[in-house]
Amino acid sequence: MTIDLNSDMGESYGAYTIGADEEVLRWVTSANVACGWHGGDPSVMRRTVGRAKSLGVAVGAHPSYPDLLGFGRRVMQITRQEARDYVLYQIGALRAFAEALGVRLQHVKPHGAIYNAAVTDRELSLGIAEGVADAGGNLILVGLPGSEILRAGREIGLRLAREAFGDRAYNEDGTLVSRRLPGSLITDPDAVAERVLGFTRGVGTAITGKAIRIEADTVCLHGDTPGAGRIARRVRERLEAAGVTPRPMGEFIR
Amino acid sequence: MTIDLNSDMGESYGAYTIGADEEVLRWVTSANVACGWHGGDPSVMRRTVGRAKSLGVAVGAHPSYPDLLGFGRRVMQITRQEARDYVLYQIGALRAFAEALGVRLQHVKPHGAIYNAAVTDRELSLGIAEGVADAGGNLILVGLPGSEILRAGREIGLRLAREAFGDRAYNEDGTLVSRRLPGSLITDPDAVAERVLGFTRGVGTAITGKAIRIEADTVCLHGDTPGAGRIARRVRERLEAAGVTPRPMGEFIR
Amino acid sequence: MTIDLNSDMGESYGAYTIGADEEVLRWVTSANVACGWHGGDPSVMRRTVGRAKSLGVAVGAHPSYPDLLGFGRRVMQITRQEARDYVLYQIGALRAFAEALGVRLQHVKPHGAIYNAAVTDRELSLGIAEGVADAGGNLILVGLPGSEILRAGREIGLRLAREAFGDRAYNEDGTLVSRRLPGSLITDPDAVAERVLGFTRGVGTAITGKAIRIEADTVCLHGDTPGAGRIARRVRERLEAAGVTPRPMGEFIR
Amino acid sequence: MTIDLNSDMGESYGAYTIGADEEVLRWVTSANVACGWHGGDPSVMRRTVGRAKSLGVAVGAHPSYPDLLGFGRRVMQITRQEARDYVLYQIGALRAFAEALGVRLQHVKPHGAIYNAAVTDRELSLGIAEGVADAGGNLILVGLPGSEILRAGREIGLRLAREAFGDRAYNEDGTLVSRRLPGSLITDPDAVAERVLGFTRGVGTAITGKAIRIEADTVCLHGDTPGAGRIARRVRERLEAAGVTPRPMGEFIR
Repeated sequence: MTIDLNSDMGESYGAYTIGADEEVLRWVTSANVACGWHGGDPSVMRRTVGRAKSLGVAVGAHPSYPDLLGFGRRVMQITRQEARDYVLYQIGALRAFAEALGVRLQHVKPHGAIYNAAVTDRELSLGIAEGVADAGGNLILVGLPGSEILRAGREIGLRLAREAFGDRAYNEDGTLVSRRLPGSLITDPDAVAERVLGFTRGVGTAITGKAIRIEADTVCLHGDTPGAGRIARRVRERLEAAGVTPRPMGEFIR
Repeated sequence: MTIDLNSDMGESYGAYTIGADEEVLRWVTSANVACGWHGGDPSVMRRTVGRAKSLGVAVGAHPSYPDLLGFGRRVMQITRQEARDYVLYQIGALRAFAEALGVRLQHVKPHGAIYNAAVTDRELSLGIAEGVADAGGNLILVGLPGSEILRAGREIGLRLAREAFGDRAYNEDGTLVSRRLPGSLITDPDAVAERVLGFTRGVGTAITGKAIRIEADTVCLHGDTPGAGRIARRVRERLEAAGVTPRPMGEFIR
Repeated sequence: MTIDLNSDMGESYGAYTIGADEEVLRWVTSANVACGWHGGDPSVMRRTVGRAKSLGVAVGAHPSYPDLLGFGRRVMQITRQEARDYVLYQIGALRAFAEALGVRLQHVKPHGAIYNAAVTDRELSLGIAEGVADAGGNLILVGLPGSEILRAGREIGLRLAREAFGDRAYNEDGTLVSRRLPGSLITDPDAVAERVLGFTRGVGTAITGKAIRIEADTVCLHGDTPGAGRIARRVRERLEAAGVTPRPMGEFIR
Repeated sequence: MTIDLNSDMGESYGAYTIGADEEVLRWVTSANVACGWHGGDPSVMRRTVGRAKSLGVAVGAHPSYPDLLGFGRRVMQITRQEARDYVLYQIGALRAFAEALGVRLQHVKPHGAIYNAAVTDRELSLGIAEGVADAGGNLILVGLPGSEILRAGREIGLRLAREAFGDRAYNEDGTLVSRRLPGSLITDPDAVAERVLGFTRGVGTAITGKAIRIEADTVCLHGDTPGAGRIARRVRERLEAAGVTPRPMGEFIR
């Protein structure tokens, strides 16, 4: 009965600021740090790793398609080899900042559209997993339970973390309800917190009301939604009130 | 009496091919590999490191200003902190490919305009040197003798390599004759080879004809000039005929 | 019995040179000029429009997905509105150079992956067609016969040009044989020339050998294949020997 | 006794929002719209031109160095020809949106570092002015009184607008006090408004307290400072209370 709380961080770029990094960072245990391809820049990366370190938050890479204009939210048809090379490049860039600050990179969580595409795209998933394997360091690959990317990571021998979403509705088969459907997003902090607590016992509730099984090592807390800091805090407090202390996934994923 | 021969490599990008990598790589001992900011892309980086490894050529990072459109040949006014972060980002990205292929990164040679600006810009030089220091790994920083960047690297405690140019004319004070002046470029392979041989004894000839002192640990062989492969070969053969076997700088720089 | 010959032009970028522009430009009647998003840069655009003008070749825009790294050859999932805005931006940029040189923009031919995606994607096609309509100037939209993009252009009231490929094999239904299949590319200049001549009479030959109907206002001559200049010349000469003088599509498309 | 009020607009990019466009736009008479090189993207450009039109605000292009990462605030050493081509590209792109919405482009105001560099760099200024001239349409070029760019524009025969800054302190010679010096920025809305009113009579006050002559056709109101909307409103109201109705520069610049 332990769980990691992760959030995307460091997606600001040059003069542009995005996300509620400072508000959310203190409540999570793992930070997915943007690597400059959908957001983030070298100076933001350094600052973000530094803040995570000072708060005791573990650091992972958050690689993306090369699409700053689309913030990495648009699927691109890239080859397996390109996926492998793009992921390795971004991990390497971030790791240099992590190591310079004495931080060991913990995990890799693909961002946005490449994360979603990898749920069902086996070739893409193999490329991503190979890029993570190339990087060495026993990095944990984060993905949706049942996804191709976790399958690919398992075949390649990576450590894996299954991710759940406290603010997203689930179908009965454990997939996420499309964001375009009503009721797909849960915005009430208490409701989110209660759901996350359920995840620590392997229990979720489908949008139909039916109880479903949710296997989760880490729960994503979005940093770009209104009230993100408040929700993150509520989740953290609810977990701790129930005797569950969130811990960085690297401490318990084998 | 030993010397390293270096050349810029891996500056192709996506569908674009540039340079005579394959022709030059077999004659040099160190490859300065582009990191995606003025040229190079992740897939080119992987291939270039792989080719260098298979030919026994040492690999270094060739970081640049963020200026693909200008191929890194235009000075940009960046801060010391930006220089530090940009250099670290690029070293990290390349090192991931090097390590994935079992290659240890040897050196860092700034590219184009940032190399030239760092000859006289102390703040920029400090930023670059700090980025190299951040990267760890006892990397060698390559620069022009007498430049601010070598001064900055010395202050910070980096290993340093002094670079000479076999195909560029020198002034009597050891600075390079501007490319805009007649006679600044030496294109005859035999002449280049003879000059490089002279460098191994610390001897150069100024454009005025006067003998000057040239301190060089490594000699740059350009890969983007016509006949680049032929010149590189001629230099290598002339050195070996004179009993000087070029070696990667990492083998003899303390 | 008239036809236009078009070719992609001006895809060089900064220090990078690509294509056989100079060899091909003198044989075609319409140039599709890259607008900086998959290739091309402002200086290349100016030079390319200038060369086209001096050779009497009509100029059109060749807009792309925002993907320089992938040379516009990878499908991206963009919205209809994004397609509209991206196309309008690129047309406007190119038109400024055309007008500065006294050239009236003739047509728009989407590049690479966005051209291919628009064959079957109605929303994307509507976005592209709306962008062309926004630009005004009675521009001709170039697309594959039977494609969604020509359908969208017709609905919106644009002038249209149907494009055929002299160096690509056709299926019996008039679609192109996938590049991945053997025999999909025709490289013999005489064979290409003969096929193009057939197009001027509405006649093609499927890969099965069966005669098929090909409706073509313009034929694409690739500029990035080996021998591109030679093939373009052979096509032009074959047409003229048969009494068919290629003309810019703007002269005969209503 | 008339004056234009201008402000930079449309500098948001993809998922990133910057500036107080909506708050400021209703108080100014001319909008300098980013063209995608330091900020802005095609969809932002369309929306910004649309908002300006609906509020009766005139539209101009706000071209920049190609430096999204640095938000166009870092000097780059580009050639006169590059400046010319870059400016023309960006004007063309924006003009396509303006014309699609039935808006006639009024002016060009270079952005950030290229604006500042053009104060003293004659070659750069000539390139910019040539780019504006290439674009045709009798566009007004905006620059600092006494700057090289206004000199270049005059030589080339462009319409010119002299710009003053209500929130920046002046030296006795009419140049701006460096932002790095104390007292260089004026943040009190009433003080800014009073200064702008003075400009309409040709009167300014140097940081020393001495009255100086300020020739201004247009006054820049920054949109990215805290309280930008409030300051803009105060300026507008102060002018109108004094019987000065701001008008788009295109209505009174010959």
